[in-house]
Amino acid sequence: MGANGEKFSIAVLGGTGAEGSGLALRWARAGYAVIIGSRVDERARTHAAALQARAAQVEIRGADNLAAAASADLVVLSVPYSAHRPTLEQVEPALQGKILVDLTVPLRPPAVRRVQLPPGQAAALEAQELLGENVRVVAAFQNVSAEVLDDDAAKVDCDVLICGNDPGARDTVVELAAAAGMRGLHAGQLANAVAVESLTPVLLFINRRYGGVHSGIRITGLDSV
Amino acid sequence: MGANGEKFSIAVLGGTGAEGSGLALRWARAGYAVIIGSRVDERARTHAAALQARAAQVEIRGADNLAAAASADLVVLSVPYSAHRPTLEQVEPALQGKILVDLTVPLRPPAVRRVQLPPGQAAALEAQELLGENVRVVAAFQNVSAEVLDDDAAKVDCDVLICGNDPGARDTVVELAAAAGMRGLHAGQLANAVAVESLTPVLLFINRRYGGVHSGIRITGLDSV
Repeated sequence: MGANGEKFSIAVLGGTGAEGSGLALRWARAGYAVIIGSRVDERARTHAAALQARAAQVEIRGADNLAAAASADLVVLSVPYSAHRPTLEQVEPALQGKILVDLTVPLRPPAVRRVQLPPGQAAALEAQELLGENVRVVAAFQNVSAEVLDDDAAKVDCDVLICGNDPGARDTVVELAAAAGMRGLHAGQLANAVAVESLTPVLLFINRRYGGVHSGIRITGLDSV
Repeated sequence: MGANGEKFSIAVLGGTGAEGSGLALRWARAGYAVIIGSRVDERARTHAAALQARAAQVEIRGADNLAAAASADLVVLSVPYSAHRPTLEQVEPALQGKILVDLTVPLRPPAVRRVQLPPGQAAALEAQELLGENVRVVAAFQNVSAEVLDDDAAKVDCDVLICGNDPGARDTVVELAAAAGMRGLHAGQLANAVAVESLTPVLLFINRRYGGVHSGIRITGLDSV
């Protein structure tokens, strides 16, 4: 929340994909102003209009990634790993002083069911290195099924593990997880994004091994949280 | 099971620790012949006798690590990361042709709540590299609370993610997980041990952040497994 009780605005870069769309719509329904970002301004506007048509009285608009990032209080990055660095290099000036929530999983097709660590060990660590300490990078939402998120009616049976070096920024993302219908948990420093990002290929393996499922994770032993 | 329906014998190297003890006792109760291994033969024998006193009609004996590994059909390694390589170098000849179940988490104190990847990315990958392809290394049981395992009465609310390059060896460890009261799940190739091992510092962070809990993980979306 802002100081005056207003909800902050959220840009979802790569918001035309299933995961970004699902989160954008859930946050818009919870009262946040959402800006869909895409490489192409017109595609973002068209997609924002389509999302707006799925819900009543929500605020979703579209813009190119840089304009979306510049106009938002908080920025979410939901792109394939191959677009991670180019997108960050493009929007970096618009992120200074803000929280960046990085959803990126460093999958490298075709072997997406096997952990293949990126050069910086985690996409979120690479983002923090590239952006500098004036951007509070938080890694989250990597283990949630995009298909489930994008299903308006679906209850999401998955916890959100939230890693970042700034506990206050993690608190903000706990709030965003709750607004999207999930339990967010503090999961430690940004270095721990290695665990959370690399869990996604494991879940993709499980989905195939056990047949047509959308697996997720729950942390046990925390009934009171 | 052996070909004649006999249960195979299991050596638990580092079996004097809480996690090794808990698993050893659970497997002995399930009918497996268990050999506790330790660096010091006498300590292994004393500890085996103490475990045997906790249960009726189970078979648990003790020996030094090399003798324990040599006399068992399957070997489990449950040692601190600092003892991982020295122990493997010592017992390597006794492991050839067998399954090694590696429980090791590459924690490096004092920062045990932060992922610090080892040089080979995962302890289990380092074991496979050291032992060669004639040993089927399977990574498992890293996320289960040692205290819970060692509590005879405790129900373990945690899935066991099982990684290894040989699906048949993973099947055997699924069976061992069930015998110890847990659901074991195929989690892919040994490379995926990176995810499972690095989840442990995350769980240790959660234990402290949320106060005095023994957290674990469950895979959701798999009701039929």
